Amino acid sequence: MAMVKSTLGDAAQKTTGEALQGALVDLLDLSLVGKQAHWNITGRHFKQVHEHLDEVVDLARQYADTVAERAVAIGVNPDGRVRTLADRTAIPQLDAGYITDDKVVAAITDVLAQIIQRFRERIEATEEADPVTQDLFIGLTAELEKQHWMFSVQH
Amino acid sequence: MAMVKSTLGDAAQKTTGEALQGALVDLLDLSLVGKQAHWNITGRHFKQVHEHLDEVVDLARQYADTVAERAVAIGVNPDGRVRTLADRTAIPQLDAGYITDDKVVAAITDVLAQIIQRFRERIEATEEADPVTQDLFIGLTAELEKQHWMFSVQH
Amino acid sequence: MAMVKSTLGDAAQKTTGEALQGALVDLLDLSLVGKQAHWNITGRHFKQVHEHLDEVVDLARQYADTVAERAVAIGVNPDGRVRTLADRTAIPQLDAGYITDDKVVAAITDVLAQIIQRFRERIEATEEADPVTQDLFIGLTAELEKQHWMFSVQH
Amino acid sequence: MAMVKSTLGDAAQKTTGEALQGALVDLLDLSLVGKQAHWNITGRHFKQVHEHLDEVVDLARQYADTVAERAVAIGVNPDGRVRTLADRTAIPQLDAGYITDDKVVAAITDVLAQIIQRFRERIEATEEADPVTQDLFIGLTAELEKQHWMFSVQH
Amino acid sequence: MAMVKSTLGDAAQKTTGEALQGALVDLLDLSLVGKQAHWNITGRHFKQVHEHLDEVVDLARQYADTVAERAVAIGVNPDGRVRTLADRTAIPQLDAGYITDDKVVAAITDVLAQIIQRFRERIEATEEADPVTQDLFIGLTAELEKQHWMFSVQH
Amino acid sequence: MAMVKSTLGDAAQKTTGEALQGALVDLLDLSLVGKQAHWNITGRHFKQVHEHLDEVVDLARQYADTVAERAVAIGVNPDGRVRTLADRTAIPQLDAGYITDDKVVAAITDVLAQIIQRFRERIEATEEADPVTQDLFIGLTAELEKQHWMFSVQH
Amino acid sequence: MAMVKSTLGDAAQKTTGEALQGALVDLLDLSLVGKQAHWNITGRHFKQVHEHLDEVVDLARQYADTVAERAVAIGVNPDGRVRTLADRTAIPQLDAGYITDDKVVAAITDVLAQIIQRFRERIEATEEADPVTQDLFIGLTAELEKQHWMFSVQH
Amino acid sequence: MAMVKSTLGDAAQKTTGEALQGALVDLLDLSLVGKQAHWNITGRHFKQVHEHLDEVVDLARQYADTVAERAVAIGVNPDGRVRTLADRTAIPQLDAGYITDDKVVAAITDVLAQIIQRFRERIEATEEADPVTQDLFIGLTAELEKQHWMFSVQH
Amino acid sequence: MAMVKSTLGDAAQKTTGEALQGALVDLLDLSLVGKQAHWNITGRHFKQVHEHLDEVVDLARQYADTVAERAVAIGVNPDGRVRTLADRTAIPQLDAGYITDDKVVAAITDVLAQIIQRFRERIEATEEADPVTQDLFIGLTAELEKQHWMFSVQH
Amino acid sequence: MAMVKSTLGDAAQKTTGEALQGALVDLLDLSLVGKQAHWNITGRHFKQVHEHLDEVVDLARQYADTVAERAVAIGVNPDGRVRTLADRTAIPQLDAGYITDDKVVAAITDVLAQIIQRFRERIEATEEADPVTQDLFIGLTAELEKQHWMFSVQH
Amino acid sequence: MAMVKSTLGDAAQKTTGEALQGALVDLLDLSLVGKQAHWNITGRHFKQVHEHLDEVVDLARQYADTVAERAVAIGVNPDGRVRTLADRTAIPQLDAGYITDDKVVAAITDVLAQIIQRFRERIEATEEADPVTQDLFIGLTAELEKQHWMFSVQH
Amino acid sequence: MAMVKSTLGDAAQKTTGEALQGALVDLLDLSLVGKQAHWNITGRHFKQVHEHLDEVVDLARQYADTVAERAVAIGVNPDGRVRTLADRTAIPQLDAGYITDDKVVAAITDVLAQIIQRFRERIEATEEADPVTQDLFIGLTAELEKQHWMFSVQH
Repeated sequence: MAMVKSTLGDAAQKTTGEALQGALVDLLDLSLVGKQAHWNITGRHFKQVHEHLDEVVDLARQYADTVAERAVAIGVNPDGRVRTLADRTAIPQLDAGYITDDKVVAAITDVLAQIIQRFRERIEATEEADPVTQDLFIGLTAELEKQHWMFSVQH
Repeated sequence: MAMVKSTLGDAAQKTTGEALQGALVDLLDLSLVGKQAHWNITGRHFKQVHEHLDEVVDLARQYADTVAERAVAIGVNPDGRVRTLADRTAIPQLDAGYITDDKVVAAITDVLAQIIQRFRERIEATEEADPVTQDLFIGLTAELEKQHWMFSVQH
Repeated sequence: MAMVKSTLGDAAQKTTGEALQGALVDLLDLSLVGKQAHWNITGRHFKQVHEHLDEVVDLARQYADTVAERAVAIGVNPDGRVRTLADRTAIPQLDAGYITDDKVVAAITDVLAQIIQRFRERIEATEEADPVTQDLFIGLTAELEKQHWMFSVQH
Repeated sequence: MAMVKSTLGDAAQKTTGEALQGALVDLLDLSLVGKQAHWNITGRHFKQVHEHLDEVVDLARQYADTVAERAVAIGVNPDGRVRTLADRTAIPQLDAGYITDDKVVAAITDVLAQIIQRFRERIEATEEADPVTQDLFIGLTAELEKQHWMFSVQH
Repeated sequence: MAMVKSTLGDAAQKTTGEALQGALVDLLDLSLVGKQAHWNITGRHFKQVHEHLDEVVDLARQYADTVAERAVAIGVNPDGRVRTLADRTAIPQLDAGYITDDKVVAAITDVLAQIIQRFRERIEATEEADPVTQDLFIGLTAELEKQHWMFSVQH
Repeated sequence: MAMVKSTLGDAAQKTTGEALQGALVDLLDLSLVGKQAHWNITGRHFKQVHEHLDEVVDLARQYADTVAERAVAIGVNPDGRVRTLADRTAIPQLDAGYITDDKVVAAITDVLAQIIQRFRERIEATEEADPVTQDLFIGLTAELEKQHWMFSVQH
Repeated sequence: MAMVKSTLGDAAQKTTGEALQGALVDLLDLSLVGKQAHWNITGRHFKQVHEHLDEVVDLARQYADTVAERAVAIGVNPDGRVRTLADRTAIPQLDAGYITDDKVVAAITDVLAQIIQRFRERIEATEEADPVTQDLFIGLTAELEKQHWMFSVQH
Repeated sequence: MAMVKSTLGDAAQKTTGEALQGALVDLLDLSLVGKQAHWNITGRHFKQVHEHLDEVVDLARQYADTVAERAVAIGVNPDGRVRTLADRTAIPQLDAGYITDDKVVAAITDVLAQIIQRFRERIEATEEADPVTQDLFIGLTAELEKQHWMFSVQH
Repeated sequence: MAMVKSTLGDAAQKTTGEALQGALVDLLDLSLVGKQAHWNITGRHFKQVHEHLDEVVDLARQYADTVAERAVAIGVNPDGRVRTLADRTAIPQLDAGYITDDKVVAAITDVLAQIIQRFRERIEATEEADPVTQDLFIGLTAELEKQHWMFSVQH
Repeated sequence: MAMVKSTLGDAAQKTTGEALQGALVDLLDLSLVGKQAHWNITGRHFKQVHEHLDEVVDLARQYADTVAERAVAIGVNPDGRVRTLADRTAIPQLDAGYITDDKVVAAITDVLAQIIQRFRERIEATEEADPVTQDLFIGLTAELEKQHWMFSVQH
Repeated sequence: MAMVKSTLGDAAQKTTGEALQGALVDLLDLSLVGKQAHWNITGRHFKQVHEHLDEVVDLARQYADTVAERAVAIGVNPDGRVRTLADRTAIPQLDAGYITDDKVVAAITDVLAQIIQRFRERIEATEEADPVTQDLFIGLTAELEKQHWMFSVQH
Repeated sequence: MAMVKSTLGDAAQKTTGEALQGALVDLLDLSLVGKQAHWNITGRHFKQVHEHLDEVVDLARQYADTVAERAVAIGVNPDGRVRTLADRTAIPQLDAGYITDDKVVAAITDVLAQIIQRFRERIEATEEADPVTQDLFIGLTAELEKQHWMFSVQH
C-alpha cells in the first residue's frame, strides 16, 4: 500500500507524531467547544462574544487541518475520529443548556490558557526532533496567545 | 436568565427539537469522518477524492451551524459537545491509519445513505410540528442526495 | 392596459394577495422602526446593537421587495405607500428621542415576536392557496426567528 | 456498473423521474428559444429586451442543470439530447429570421405562461412522491412567475 | 442619560436640525414612492424604468441614513417613524394599482423637482448655521439634480 | 423592418453565413452532448471528467453566442432552434442512460475531432470571403484543439 | 534621442503607420461623438441608449490606446492632438444641443458604418505590410461590426 | 421636445453654464494632451511618467463626464465636439513626434497650472450663481492641484 | 531645487498652511492615541471598542495623508516628525498601562470634541484664504462629528 | 500509449512543431534572463525597471505555456528541460553579479529585438502550415513588440 | 482589574517585553519618518520613491500593531504615545522642508540598516526567553532586510 | 557601484549564500521539470495530475523568487541563468516525449524527496549563520513535504 516515507528518523518521527496528534485533539475539541458556546450563549454581550467565538472556531479548524496534514506528511496517521477525541481531550467541558456571556468568557479564557500550556511543551519537545513542525507550533501558539489576551481582558 | 420564548407549542417544540438535535449529531460527525478520510486517504484518485471530501465537510459544517441555530431559535438548546457526539452518533466509523480511495468512496457512500435515511424521517416528523424546520431539512436533504449520487457513481 | 394574468384561481389569488400585502406592511414598517432605533439608540452596547439593527433593516428591505414582487407576479398590486403603512401597521411604535440600548433590545424582541406570529398565520393561510408563496413565507420566517433568538438572549 | 440506489420507492421514483424529465425538456428548450430571440430581435427596445433574454437563458440553464442532477440523484437518468428535445418539447417555436421586440415580448410571455402551467402540475404530482423534488419545483416556479410578470407588463 | 453635546449654538442647532428633519422625511418617502412605482409600473419601457427606479431608491436610502446620522451628530434626534412620515410628507402620492411607464416618468420628474426646490432652500438656510451640514446638502442636491435631468429627458 | 446592412458582398455574405450557421449547430449540440455526459457519467474518474465536461460546455456556449452574433452582424439570421439542431447536427449522439467514464472520454475525443475537421474547412472557406470571421474561427479552433489534446491523452 | 528601431522595412512601416494614424483619428473622434450624444440625448429610450453609448466610448478609448501604442511600437509617432483630430476626422458631426434618441441611433449607426468601411480598407492595406497590425484591425473590426448590428436593429 | 427645467434663474444658469462649458473644454483637451504624451514620451523615466500620465487622463475623463452631466442637469447643453475643442482650447499644445520625459514633465506642470488658474476663477464665478456647481469645481481643483504638485517636484 | 509654485497669495498661503499643519498634528496624534487605547483597553466591551478604535485610526491616518498632501500642494511643507508632534500636540494624553473601556470611551469622546473645536476654527480661518482647503476641512469635520456622536452615546 | 492524433499533415506538423519548439526555448530563457536581471539590477531606476521586468517574465511564462500546449495539441512533444534550454538558446546571456539599470535596459532591448526577429520568421513559416499556430505567433509578437518599444525609449 | 496572565516566567517576560517595546518605538517612528519623506520628497525619481515609501509605511504600521499586540498578549503594556516615541526613538531624524530623492534614498537606507541591527539583537535576546516572540522578530527582519536591499541599490 | 552592505559577517554570509544559491537551482529546475511533465503527461489521471503539477510549479516559482531576493538582501548575487542551472542541477531529468501519469507521479515523488533532503541540510547549515534565512528554509520545507506526501500516496 502507498505510504509516506518520512524524512525523519524513527525517534524524531515518534516524538513529533505524538505532539501533532495531541495538538489535533486540542484543536478539534476547541472547535466543538467554541461552537457549543456560540450557539448557547446569552447575555447583553451576546452578539460581540457570539461572533468572536467564530473567529476562534475558524482558527481552530484551520490549524487542525494544518496539524493533521503535517502529521501525515511525516508519515504518521492523524486520528480525528469522534471516539478518539472524546477519550483523549483534556479540555474542560461546558455544561449543557444556556450559558451566560460572563461564563463563556471565563471558560474560553481558561480553555485557551490550558491549550497554550500544552503547545509550549510541544514547542520544546519538537525543537530537536523536527524544527519544521516546531515552527508550525510557534506560529499557532502566537495566534492562541493573541486570542487568550482578548478573552482575558473582557472582565 | 434570558431565554427564547418559542413560537411552537410544547409537543411541536419537543418533536422538532429532537429532530434538530439528531441532525446536529449526524452533521458534526459527518464533518469529522470526512476530515479523517481527507487526511488518511491513499491511492491513485487521492487528489480528486481528497478535494471532494472537503466539499462534503464544508457542507456538513455549514448545515450543522444552521441546524443548531434553528434549535435555539425555537427554544431548544443544541448539544454539540464531543462526549455527546461520541455517545450518540450512528455513523459507522472509519478504521485508523491509511485508507485506500476505493474504501473511502464506499464508506462515504454508505455514510451518506444512512444519514439521508434519517433526514427523510425527520422531514416526515416535522411536517406537522414545524414547517419552517421541515423546509430546512428538505433543502439539506437535496444537498446530501446530490453528494450521495456523486460518490455512488465513482465505481 | 398591460396586466399580469394570474396562474391562481380567484379565491386563491385573493387569499394569497392579502397575506402578501400584510407581509409588505409588516416588513416596510420593520425597516423604518429598525432605522429609528439605529439612529437614536444610546448606551454602552451602542455599537453592537446599532450594527445589529442594520442587519435587521437589510433583511426587512430585501424581503419587502421579494414579497411585493411576488404579489404583482400573481396579479395583485402591492401597496407600500406611506399613508397605507401608517394606517395599517400593527407594529408597536417607538417613542421619539433617545432610546437606551436595553429598551431597544426589548422593543425589537417584541416587534419580531409579533411579526413572526402573523407570518405563522400566513404560512397556514397560503398552504392550499399557493405553495409557492407559502415557501417564500417559510424561508422568511426562518430568518425572522433567527433574529428573534438573537435579540431574545441579549438580556 | 455503478448506479445510484434511490431513496425513493419505485412508484415515487417513477412519478418524480417523469416530472423531472419533463422539466428538463422545458428548461433546455427555453434556453434555446431565449437565445434565438436574443440574436434575432429588432426594434427600438432591442437593447433592453436583448439583455433581459439573457437573464431568462441563464435561469433556464442553471435550473436545467439542477433538475437533471436531481434526476440522477434519485436514480433516474436525465435525457437532454437534441433529438429528445426536438421530439418532446411542447414550447411553441419562433419563426426563423428577424423578429420584432413586440413579438418577442408576446412570445416569451406566452412561453413562460405555458411552462409555469406545467410546473404547477409537477408541484402537485410530486407532493406525495418526493417533497425534496417538490421544493425544487416550487423555488423554480417562483423565479419563472417573476419573469412572467416582467414580460407580461411590457405592453 | 447619554446624549450628544452639540458643537453648534442653540439657534444654529435648531435651524440645522429642522432642515435635516425635513430632508429625512423627503428622502424616506422618496424611497417609498420609488419602490411603489418600481413594483407597479407597466409599459414597454418597464425594464428600463423599473431598474432606474432602484437607483433612485438606493440614493434615497443612503442619503436618508447620512442625513439622520448628521442630525444626531449635532444633538438633534431624527424622527423617521411611519406616522411622522405620513403626516409631514409633502411629496405628491401615487395612485394605487398599475401605473404606466409614462406616468411614472412624469411623476418622478415632478417629485424630484419639488424635493430639489426644498433642498435648495435648506442649502441657504444652513449656510450660516452649519457649513458642514450645508456641504452634505450640496452634495445630495447634485445627485438629485442628476436624477432629475435623467427623468426629465425621457419624453 | 430594421435589418443589418452587411459590409460584405452577396457571395461573401452567403459563404460566411453558411459557415457560421454550420458552426452554430456544431457548438450548440456540443453543449448538449457535453451536459448529457456530465449528468450520466459513472466510473472512478467521475469527478475529474464531470468537471472537465463543464469547461467544454462553457466553451461551447460562449462561442455559440459569439458565432451567432457574428452572423447577424453580417446580416445573416442565425438559427439555433431545437428542430434545426436535431435535423442538421452531424455530431454522433450518445446512448441514453449511464455511460462509463472511459466511454465518455472516447466519445468526446471523437466528437471534438470531427468538429475540428469542419472548423478547419470553415477557416479555409472564409479566408477570402471574410477575414474577420476567419479570425474568429481560428481562435475557436485553437481552443477546441486544446480540449481535443486533453481528452486524447486520457487513456 | 531614444527611438524605436522598427522591425518593418521602410515601405511597410509607412503603409502601416498611415493606417494606424487614420484608425487613431477615427477612434478618438468616435469617443468624442459618443460622449456628445451620451450627454445631450433625449427621448423615451434615453436610459437604454445613454448607457449603450458608454459601451461604444469605452471600446473606442481602449482601441485608440492600442492603436497608438502599436504605431509607436513600429517606430511611427501617433498624433492624437485636438487640432489634428479636428482637421482630419471624416466622421459626420452631430448638431449642438439636445438630440432625440431616434436621431442618435441613426447617427451612430451611420458613423459606425463609415468607420467600418475604412477599417476594412486598412485590413487589406496591411495584409502584406504587417500581419501583426492587420490582426489588430481584424479584432477591432469584429467589435465595431457587433456594435453596428446592435444600433442597426434599433428601429 | 423633452428638456430639463432648470432650478436656476436665467442669469445664474448662464454664468454657471459658461463655467461648465469652459471646464469641459479644458478637461477633454487635457485628456488628449495627456494621451499624446503617454504615447510619445522617451527617456529614462519613461515607465514612471508614462503610467503617471494615465492617472491624469483618467481624472480628466471622469471629471469631464461629471462636468458635462452637471451642465445638462441645469439645462445647458454641453458641447464636447472635436471642432469646438480645437477652436476653444487654451491649453498649450505639444509638438508632434517623440518628446523627452523632461519636456513632458515641464509641459504637464505648465498645463495643469494654467487649468487650475481658470478653475479658481470658475469657483469664484459660481459662488453666488450655483453653490452646487461650485462645490464640484472645488473638489476637482483639489485633485488638479494634487497632480500639479506631483509634477512640479519632479525636477 | 524643485518646489511647488502656489496658486495662493502669500497671506492666504500662510493662513492655510498653518491650519493644515495644525490639522496634521491633531490627526497624527489622534492615530497614536487611538492605537494606544486599542492595545491597552480592558473591560467587558473590549471587543466592540477595540474594533471601533481601529475605525478612528484608519480615519485619522487617511485624513492625515490628505491634509499633508494638501499642504505641499499649496507650497507649504508639512511636518509630521515625532518631535514636532510631541511638542505641538494639544490632545490630552492617556495614562500608561491598562485602561478600562469606560475610561477609553470617555477619553476618546473628549479628544474628539477638542479636535472638532479646532477644525471648526480652521473652517472659518480658511473660508477666504482657500475654499479648496476649507472644503477638505468640512468633509473631515463631518466624519469626526459622526465618530464623536458614536462615542458620546456609549454611556 | 495515448497520444494526440494531429489534424495537420506530416509536413505541416513538422514545420509547425519546429517553430513552436523554437518559440518555447526563446520564451523560457527570456523568463530566466528577466528574473536574473530582476534580482541583480542596481541603479537609481531600480524600482521602475525591477517591476517592469516582472511584467516581461509574466508574459514569457504565460506564452511559454500556451506555446507548449499548442505543440502537444498538434501532436508534437515540447521539450522545456534545462539541458535543452541551455544547449539551444540563442539569447545573449547576462554577466553574473550586479548589473546597472542602464545595462539592463540595453540588454533587454537587444534580447527582445532578437526574439522578435525569430518570431517574424515563425509567422511566415507557419502561414501555410497552420494558420491557427500562426495566429498565436502574431498575437505574441504584438506583445513582444510593445515591450520592445517600452524598453527602447528608456534612454 | 482585568489583566493578562502571562505564560512566561518573570525574567523571560521582562526581557521579551523590553524587546517588544523597543521594536514598537522603532516601527512607529519608521512610519512617521516614511510619511515625512513621502510628503516632502522632490526630484526626478519622485513618483517611484514616493510610492515605495508607502510600502515601507504600510509594513511599519502593520508590524507595529503585531508587536504591540504581542506585548499585551504576554502581559506587558505597550507604550506608543507620542511623548514616549519622541523621547526614546533612536532613528536619525529628517530635516524639515523639501528633501531630494537622493537624500531620501540615502536616509531610508541608513534608517533601515540601524533598525535591522537592533532587530538582530532582539532575535538573540529572545531566543531563550520566548521563541514565539523571536519568530515574530525573525519574520519582520526578513521584510526589513528586503526593503534595505531595495533602497541600498538605488544609487 | 551600488551594492548591499550585508548585516552578516563574512563566514555567515558565505555559508548562507551558498545555501541560498543551491536552493535557487533546485527550485528553478523543479519549476522546469514540473512544466515538462505538465505538458507531456498522458493517462487516465491526466487532468488531476496535470493541474496538480501547476500547484508545484507555482510553489517553486514563488519560492525561487523569495530565495533569490533573500540572497541579494544579504549581499550575495543569485545566479539563475540557464547555463548555471543546467550545470549544477542535481535533479534527475525526465525523458523526452510522452510520459504516463504513473511515471510522472513516481518521478515527482522522487524529485521532491531529494530536494527535501537538501533543504533539511540547509536548515542545519544556516542555524548559526543566519536564523532569518533558516526560517525561510523551514517554511519552504513544510510546503515541499506537504507536496511530497500528496504525491507519495498516489499509488
